[in-house]
Amino acid sequence: MNNATALYPEIEDRPGCIQAALNILGDKWSPLLLSLLFEGGKTFGEMEKTLEGISPRTLSARLDRLETEGILERHQYCEHPPRYKYCLTDKGRDLRAILLQMAAWGEKYQAPTN
Amino acid sequence: MNNATALYPEIEDRPGCIQAALNILGDKWSPLLLSLLFEGGKTFGEMEKTLEGISPRTLSARLDRLETEGILERHQYCEHPPRYKYCLTDKGRDLRAILLQMAAWGEKYQAPTN
Repeated sequence: MNNATALYPEIEDRPGCIQAALNILGDKWSPLLLSLLFEGGKTFGEMEKTLEGISPRTLSARLDRLETEGILERHQYCEHPPRYKYCLTDKGRDLRAILLQMAAWGEKYQAPTN
Repeated sequence: MNNATALYPEIEDRPGCIQAALNILGDKWSPLLLSLLFEGGKTFGEMEKTLEGISPRTLSARLDRLETEGILERHQYCEHPPRYKYCLTDKGRDLRAILLQMAAWGEKYQAPTN
């Protein structure tokens, strides 16, 4: 036992909280999608173009899920024809701190070939 | 475009770095296992006892993988019979900042029923 013990319950007592974050971030596309949206609201077409290799079907499914989870909101910006932008909520924007920590860790330790 | 744009490449340019962190953290047991090891070195038996519901086979597979990834090291503390403790490396300890951010996010936004 050492000083770390005092901090240990912060994590150990909250496995559900950590899992909640991993449920959002733990797929191939969501971190990339969020990175795009940190920049500002985007249309479906803008995201499809930037996320090379994503199928419209997968993008649509990811957006639906993130909307259901309260991570993003759809805003209609044109009525005829109906057009939407996808914007992060506060809950979504707050994921940024996690992704920055992950990026810092990966940059420090990842093999240079990746 | 706004101030966030300046920070955006920090994440967007490092999808591989983020994925490297998610590859370690994105399974059911690894965050719990790491939380235990932040406290200090543990034997297989100690971890098996604390992580209720984990099978010895799954625990063994997770430990092997985390050792291969350079997240933890085995230290022999008894020769006859051979006994080992599992301890985090610097690379493993540095995952703590990510887990703390996740725990904070989850605590802020998770439904109180979870």
